[in-house]
Amino acid sequence: MTHADSTASTDSTANPVPTTSETEEARYARGLAALRQVTGGESSAILDAISDIAPDLARFTVAFGYGDIWSRPGLTPRQRQIATVAALAALGNAAPQLRFHIAGALNVGCTRREIVETFIHTSVYAGFPAALNALAAAREVFAAHPADDDPVVKEAVDGDRYQRGLDALRAVDGPEGVHVVASLDDIAPDLGRYLVEYVFGDVYTRTGLDLPTRELASIAMCTALGTAAPQLRVHIRAFLNVGGTRTEVVETLTQMAGYAGFPAALNGLTAAREIFAETP
Amino acid sequence: MTHADSTASTDSTANPVPTTSETEEARYARGLAALRQVTGGESSAILDAISDIAPDLARFTVAFGYGDIWSRPGLTPRQRQIATVAALAALGNAAPQLRFHIAGALNVGCTRREIVETFIHTSVYAGFPAALNALAAAREVFAAHPADDDPVVKEAVDGDRYQRGLDALRAVDGPEGVHVVASLDDIAPDLGRYLVEYVFGDVYTRTGLDLPTRELASIAMCTALGTAAPQLRVHIRAFLNVGGTRTEVVETLTQMAGYAGFPAALNGLTAAREIFAETP
Amino acid sequence: MTHADSTASTDSTANPVPTTSETEEARYARGLAALRQVTGGESSAILDAISDIAPDLARFTVAFGYGDIWSRPGLTPRQRQIATVAALAALGNAAPQLRFHIAGALNVGCTRREIVETFIHTSVYAGFPAALNALAAAREVFAAHPADDDPVVKEAVDGDRYQRGLDALRAVDGPEGVHVVASLDDIAPDLGRYLVEYVFGDVYTRTGLDLPTRELASIAMCTALGTAAPQLRVHIRAFLNVGGTRTEVVETLTQMAGYAGFPAALNGLTAAREIFAETP
Repeated sequence: MTHADSTASTDSTANPVPTTSETEEARYARGLAALRQVTGGESSAILDAISDIAPDLARFTVAFGYGDIWSRPGLTPRQRQIATVAALAALGNAAPQLRFHIAGALNVGCTRREIVETFIHTSVYAGFPAALNALAAAREVFAAHPADDDPVVKEAVDGDRYQRGLDALRAVDGPEGVHVVASLDDIAPDLGRYLVEYVFGDVYTRTGLDLPTRELASIAMCTALGTAAPQLRVHIRAFLNVGGTRTEVVETLTQMAGYAGFPAALNGLTAAREIFAETP
Repeated sequence: MTHADSTASTDSTANPVPTTSETEEARYARGLAALRQVTGGESSAILDAISDIAPDLARFTVAFGYGDIWSRPGLTPRQRQIATVAALAALGNAAPQLRFHIAGALNVGCTRREIVETFIHTSVYAGFPAALNALAAAREVFAAHPADDDPVVKEAVDGDRYQRGLDALRAVDGPEGVHVVASLDDIAPDLGRYLVEYVFGDVYTRTGLDLPTRELASIAMCTALGTAAPQLRVHIRAFLNVGGTRTEVVETLTQMAGYAGFPAALNGLTAAREIFAETP
Repeated sequence: MTHADSTASTDSTANPVPTTSETEEARYARGLAALRQVTGGESSAILDAISDIAPDLARFTVAFGYGDIWSRPGLTPRQRQIATVAALAALGNAAPQLRFHIAGALNVGCTRREIVETFIHTSVYAGFPAALNALAAAREVFAAHPADDDPVVKEAVDGDRYQRGLDALRAVDGPEGVHVVASLDDIAPDLGRYLVEYVFGDVYTRTGLDLPTRELASIAMCTALGTAAPQLRVHIRAFLNVGGTRTEVVETLTQMAGYAGFPAALNGLTAAREIFAETP
């Protein structure tokens, strides 16, 4: 697979033409170059730790995870790292990799502010414990990666949270978002209000992470968790609403195969297919 | 939002009247008072740890998590803490918060026995590893919170486990519970027998945690896991069977938005809506 | 329940005849004998740690977990331990139990190679972080359990990965597997290619773990995760394709009740019932 081939075959209309001419060595070399972008040039302690008992998995991680997937066009390294730290934060069960990829996010150019905002965003999809633990991990990593930018921002909280949230909800999700809120009137109107006030009024309107990247993180988290199919559909639609592309959706779901498993990626694609079919 | 408004709007028939008159300061002050009930007066080390890099999330945790949600009427502080430790035990991926909320459960008046029983109950919904790890956490917390009550109880094990379980199953789930067991005859009759003998004969018949609180914990766990939709419906129905109210169901699901994320809460409400619709 | 009874009642056509004649003491004694096979004769530190605050759960773990479930015929101890370490690796949230059961797998005769292969297999179903963390745990356990066999194998990587994978896919999943890949042509053809090249070309064709055991592990992981229902159906069918029996499927799902909770086991049985119904 050359990158040109790869670009072609990520076109959601292309037919797959498996190109097996590429050697393992070429895939591994490309993967190693990608991994070095994430590690900032060092080798990966996590991979070194297993190379003695499972050298082939270490090889697969480089050749497949970084050579085949991470190196693909369609998402920038920054987008891939935001999607990855969001997914690992939401899963909450892979602390070493979360720290590794927070450092990786910094190494490919994400700001500390963007990482912090991603984890504040995590509170919506995986709860506050997941967000708090991810931020504790970020704190450790930031301490070891001195930087000039200040991740600490206190945003203004004045104004009408509900109205601000409703405007954001309309901008992001369109009529469907308002429908979700209205659908709670009969059973949990206050949760509908919290969706508007907290999720959209407090979180989505924050600066520091642009809307398409927020939705990219939402897609990554809902896909990795595998328990939020209705929300995944909502956020794939929202991502496209705010300027995301179908290729970016497919690339994000494909990347999740490496961090949450192929079933998570395949089930995410089932949701994507439904949404893509809405507007041929 | 005043508490009066909140009471009104948790009525599942009420229309949401977003009241945005309340200031951030008022929400934060109410949240801080609630948080102090949970911490027993101290500040939260977990929040302090992130206030340097994500002060806004610390603020959201207090104003939204404790001010908007935890302070709501409809569930007692003891019910909220049992639901929370059950959910965190089932998720098994937020150890610091589990320890924090076990201490919080003690601080709001839960007995050590109730906490231990909640985690024995966890073995049914999330497996023995989750239960054993939660009890290890409880052991740590209990050591730091000397109390008079003895959590250690060895219950009698004589008698007919199957008959005792069948009686409990009928009392809790009604005919539907018996149907679930019968439905296994064709494929895994012994698992049906274990449901009766272990889940109902051994666990549900234990003293130390009343039936409505057991079902409240079941609802919290099935909602947080997000992988047990059929069982969530069964236990919402069972909770209502044993005296729980619809408001308590809605409050428990709403609380899960904070500990497992909004998708978990929203999907739980979809299940609740189905059950509530059965008996208008 | 005597083992004879148990054998009878694991026949998926048998009607459950609850035999409650057996005493708690007999179940506990059988469980203790089973547990000693897993621990290699020692007592379980994990159980000892909780016996002071939850002696009844320690008792349930022995009498129910090991006496009722683990001691059942239908799966060999080696199969049970492979299913268990696969499930705990995929869940990624019970590190002490994962280490305990890796040692248990060695104690009942699994080779270090089989355990390593199981965790390489885990990368497919739960992602690389889960696989890497499980291998780090295996590394710790192996260091404390010197053995002669060498888990380290570097398999040849020459040849056509796509063709090799396609052959394996056909052998394992039959036409349905090819259909899953083809179904991705319209949206993510490259993920379809990775399924063939990585999952089947790189992983499934590896030696060191026979195909039925690989599918047993796939079933255990998809059941424990609870987020992969379509894939669980695929792999139950595949397990039967490569020589697995319905009784082994039911036993594996039943064992998951102990490690991931009864809802996971019950939902897995719903999938199994669908597959079993295809070929009466």
